[in-house]
Amino acid sequence: MKTKLPKAVIERLNLVYGLCDKLLEAGTTRISSREIGEALEIPAHTVRKDINFLGEIGDTGAGYEVSRLRTHLAVELGLDHARRACIVGLGRLGSALLEYDWDKTSDFEVVAGFDASINRLETIRSPISLFPAYEIPEVVRREQIELALLTVPRKAAKPAGKLLAEGGIRGIINFTSVSLGPLPERTAVRNLNLVNELRVLSSLVHLQEIENLERSN
Amino acid sequence: MKTKLPKAVIERLNLVYGLCDKLLEAGTTRISSREIGEALEIPAHTVRKDINFLGEIGDTGAGYEVSRLRTHLAVELGLDHARRACIVGLGRLGSALLEYDWDKTSDFEVVAGFDASINRLETIRSPISLFPAYEIPEVVRREQIELALLTVPRKAAKPAGKLLAEGGIRGIINFTSVSLGPLPERTAVRNLNLVNELRVLSSLVHLQEIENLERSN
Repeated sequence: MKTKLPKAVIERLNLVYGLCDKLLEAGTTRISSREIGEALEIPAHTVRKDINFLGEIGDTGAGYEVSRLRTHLAVELGLDHARRACIVGLGRLGSALLEYDWDKTSDFEVVAGFDASINRLETIRSPISLFPAYEIPEVVRREQIELALLTVPRKAAKPAGKLLAEGGIRGIINFTSVSLGPLPERTAVRNLNLVNELRVLSSLVHLQEIENLERSN
Repeated sequence: MKTKLPKAVIERLNLVYGLCDKLLEAGTTRISSREIGEALEIPAHTVRKDINFLGEIGDTGAGYEVSRLRTHLAVELGLDHARRACIVGLGRLGSALLEYDWDKTSDFEVVAGFDASINRLETIRSPISLFPAYEIPEVVRREQIELALLTVPRKAAKPAGKLLAEGGIRGIINFTSVSLGPLPERTAVRNLNLVNELRVLSSLVHLQEIENLERSN
């Protein structure tokens, strides 16, 4: 497989993977690229192209065998084994994520939470182990945590990113509005800023408005 | 301006807009595309190309005047006036978003929360007005709410999307793992599924692992 898959392809293939899960749950055993496209609101030819990126799967003629497609995607996308994750920053959003109802089919296990405030750590009741922020490098290494959800205040973002990298973290979802700056090359970062998400949504609404105006003129 | 801006361009330009806010706060008045690129981890030529998408801004020679760039982006991206938003589904994630510390510079106002459970509505203490889910169409229309954050359980996603559309909502950020299905064309939807975000992060980590292996061979 090509390791240089475009990010958009990786994103769409993960949606296909999630769909396979739901199809298997519902007892569906075969699906065509057209049906996948309809379910995910992606053009069918894009679905086919994306799946072909991962190499031969062999049964495009009469659609895909769902369980086979799921396994294929799992192996190629690195979803074939559980990964351990932690939440860094246990304010409102972090606490919600700590108790978030992660899909039972998702192969993630949140095994630790961190916060800089000892007071806060003492007031949160959670079955998940909680630690002070300065223990991040040690706990990440010891517990073999690969992924982190970063939900600290803006000022704490860069220092927390450094501590995670020090512990050898492999991937971070950065919920703050701050860029984490240079981290070791092996650390993957996905920025997911909610204010920005709302702004992008506003832009889509705005552009739609203009389009409607132009159409009615 | 072209209304058919690619989504990736819209996303990056919104990041540039957010950066302008921070620069103005810090008292920075001019910035080059190279500096913007460094701050946002985007190639400088992509920054220039994206900004040029919006038409002439006039001062690329010695960099951009930050306040002028910010105004230009605000107008073109539809961020020049406040938009009213609501949260639909007040479980852990929805409640956290209800009290989320939305950036003071963000032009969003969360003005309503909805939940199907009257019990839950009675236990949540919030300065924001809360309503039962069946009132969505009426309240959205009356309060002129344009944007919705959808944080309901999977089963409730499609019905909630329909109620929002009925009220004339303009944009939805869908945090559920369910596709909302056909909505009126004027409704913009952004899917933001956390399990999928974690899976994409895992894939990035996985592909990085393969690359490292290949490099060391």
